Amino acid sequence: MPRFRLTLEYHGGAYVGWQRQQNGRAVQAALEEAIQALSGASVEVVAAGRTDAGVHARGQVAHFDLARDFTPDRIRDGLNFHLRDEAIKVLDAAIVPDGFHARLSATARSYLFRILNRRPPPVLEAGLVWHVPVRLDADAMHEAAQHLVGRHDFTSFRAAECQAKSPEKTLAHLAVRRAGDEVLITAQARSFLHHQVRNMVGTLKLVGEGRWSAANVKAALDRKDRAAAGPTAPPEGLYLMRVDY
Amino acid sequence: MPRFRLTLEYHGGAYVGWQRQQNGRAVQAALEEAIQALSGASVEVVAAGRTDAGVHARGQVAHFDLARDFTPDRIRDGLNFHLRDEAIKVLDAAIVPDGFHARLSATARSYLFRILNRRPPPVLEAGLVWHVPVRLDADAMHEAAQHLVGRHDFTSFRAAECQAKSPEKTLAHLAVRRAGDEVLITAQARSFLHHQVRNMVGTLKLVGEGRWSAANVKAALDRKDRAAAGPTAPPEGLYLMRVDY
Repeated sequence: MPRFRLTLEYHGGAYVGWQRQQNGRAVQAALEEAIQALSGASVEVVAAGRTDAGVHARGQVAHFDLARDFTPDRIRDGLNFHLRDEAIKVLDAAIVPDGFHARLSATARSYLFRILNRRPPPVLEAGLVWHVPVRLDADAMHEAAQHLVGRHDFTSFRAAECQAKSPEKTLAHLAVRRAGDEVLITAQARSFLHHQVRNMVGTLKLVGEGRWSAANVKAALDRKDRAAAGPTAPPEGLYLMRVDY
Repeated sequence: MPRFRLTLEYHGGAYVGWQRQQNGRAVQAALEEAIQALSGASVEVVAAGRTDAGVHARGQVAHFDLARDFTPDRIRDGLNFHLRDEAIKVLDAAIVPDGFHARLSATARSYLFRILNRRPPPVLEAGLVWHVPVRLDADAMHEAAQHLVGRHDFTSFRAAECQAKSPEKTLAHLAVRRAGDEVLITAQARSFLHHQVRNMVGTLKLVGEGRWSAANVKAALDRKDRAAAGPTAPPEGLYLMRVDY
């Protein structure tokens, strides 16, 4: 029974998130329906990360097992045919060893957060960025971000509903840079707590506005209290870019 | 009576083009209504280039006259307020001398054409790129493009409905490069014929696919016959990026 690995792109604004929910269409459900339409089989698809409603993916990874033999190209093109009316596409499909697990085998997850930092609201980037009209100091944000890199108890940046066993995570990389009218935040870790990237971004925005110093960010981390850090940035700026194995 | 210059961003997919038409909403009409809502005045707005239906702008320039004094910031923010439900935003507003004319004073127009060159259809770039699933050779396209640079009779790349007095234009720059899954074509000239960029892109695509050589492009130009060149690329990949004065 071959196991397939998919690399996926999707527009988070069209879905309630990766996982099946009562209140709307999930990426997982759309994908499982496409697999059923292609193969006749009812399967469960496991993703590297359960992205929230509104969060985009450029490189989500998922796996599933299929009794019938398909070539990877057939899987990719066949699923994209059945996904033609969905804001989800399969970028790549491959056959992987049975031991491969999209979530458990992942060694690193990379996210990008895009802020459109200009006074006029977005047009061409509508739904694809967080619009922040006040000028942000990206260099100050980058400097403050370095306090978060490394192994820490990230309780201050953890959603109340987070199901992780431990609030300790190792943040391998967190960088902020300006690219024209955009402020781009990149983050990489083996795994993240629920809302961790969005909570870090919401906190770094306070630094970019000049309301917080880098020392305030360090103090918020040390407090181990969600109320000590900044607000949660909205989902539409966040992209799951890549998962490494 | 102050003259204002606007720099505009818009999503071409929402409009029938810059110019007022019978068959739908034009960018010009939406903008003139916003000016009327802000100032009470019924004015005509003149643009640097009359972009076609579906063509986007990141730096369209337009001018209009207003009897009442407004600060440029008030014009920008006030128009963006009235344009809040439109896919049009004012990026910049400035007061310019009476002699300034958005179309006649322009010394250069810069366009970008984006091709998403991968097998899966676009998701996050839907409506913002031309999807070409067959792998394109961007280097070969760039080499062929150099035959079009310079002063030429561009009849082979001119729409039948083009109203320019002469088919002779000086193409200052035409470059093709790959950036990940995208093939980006940049073009600059004092002015272009109607559909010239899209007709050049449609022709260069034949080179990228290996169906045409650079010599075929040169021969098509020399024939001075629209039927000798390639098809017109679709509008959704085209962006008016900048106008120089």
